Amino acid sequence: MSSSSALVEKLISALQIMPGIGPVSAARIAYYLLDRKRQEGVAMSETVKYALEHVSLCPRCRNYTDVENTECELCSGTKRRQSGLLCIVETPGDVQALENSGSFLGTYFVLHGHLSPIDGIGPQELGFPLLQHCFEDPVLKEVIIAVGQTVEGEATAQFIAAMAHKRNLKVSRIATGIPIGGELSSTDGHTLENSINFRRPY
Amino acid sequence: MSSSSALVEKLISALQIMPGIGPVSAARIAYYLLDRKRQEGVAMSETVKYALEHVSLCPRCRNYTDVENTECELCSGTKRRQSGLLCIVETPGDVQALENSGSFLGTYFVLHGHLSPIDGIGPQELGFPLLQHCFEDPVLKEVIIAVGQTVEGEATAQFIAAMAHKRNLKVSRIATGIPIGGELSSTDGHTLENSINFRRPY
Repeated sequence: MSSSSALVEKLISALQIMPGIGPVSAARIAYYLLDRKRQEGVAMSETVKYALEHVSLCPRCRNYTDVENTECELCSGTKRRQSGLLCIVETPGDVQALENSGSFLGTYFVLHGHLSPIDGIGPQELGFPLLQHCFEDPVLKEVIIAVGQTVEGEATAQFIAAMAHKRNLKVSRIATGIPIGGELSSTDGHTLENSINFRRPY
Repeated sequence: MSSSSALVEKLISALQIMPGIGPVSAARIAYYLLDRKRQEGVAMSETVKYALEHVSLCPRCRNYTDVENTECELCSGTKRRQSGLLCIVETPGDVQALENSGSFLGTYFVLHGHLSPIDGIGPQELGFPLLQHCFEDPVLKEVIIAVGQTVEGEATAQFIAAMAHKRNLKVSRIATGIPIGGELSSTDGHTLENSINFRRPY
């Protein structure tokens, strides 16, 4: 590849650190910004830099927060704390999804991933010492494990369940089954198996 | 949407100025950078900002160049200039593609788009005054119009051809037809029609 601008090449290669952006999309984005959105692109780069340098994790639930060393809005709501419910999720996006659904009014704990020894992600990286601290809250009644239904998610769930059982906490796992609007014919076998095994009285 | 971090929301919305990046991809990119690539993300944002502020256009061919007010490498090559061939393309990516193929050894002119009155892109935006200036080069023998085979591309090609004919320059259009390795059964009707109309002696 020979381009008349080394800077453009650098730009195209820099953009590729983003997930889902390969050489073709990166070139498309670079040319678009250079040709039509220089000012907006500069503003975007400044926002990205500022956010990456300033977003921190809530010292209690590890969700993103703008104010360092201060519990986030969700953690500091007394009603939420008094509910005695703690929902454990993999990502801040999961918190957002549950909040958008309006179906949960307790507090959260964000793992930022799942156990994955091959990637060097163990109990320490997922904040288990901090989670242990949450488990010691006398108000806490039930731990809802809402990690993904994957092999790694299941391993993570078992690890957390063991921790919670040691403290005599009630532990639950979010339901699996066919989604609302889902048809059996277009649902995979594992999900169908789960939906039969975990059938409920009707 | 309620998130515990306004900065994260701002980050996700900023990323969406890039073409092909909607709310879902933007959130995925934001969480990935925040969770795993903060330093690399900051470096990327600095590269993006620097490139958008410093990449300029070659004053002769309008291709990207790092040095302001100086002809780019391709334009300043005397051999290329002496070839008497000028290839007109829509984007810097097109120059790159032709250069990678090694099939053209003349100079280029980059329009940065095609005529599109509805988007406010007219002869001025495509640099036609500068192109007119290129047409006055006494060494120039042939103008090769290599804009896309679209309705807008065709309109642009006709406009340029009229300009070149006024100066008694030879004008050509890159060949259309089925691509190498292409099968007739999987080629669209317009392309097949072109490949029959522009058949060549064999």
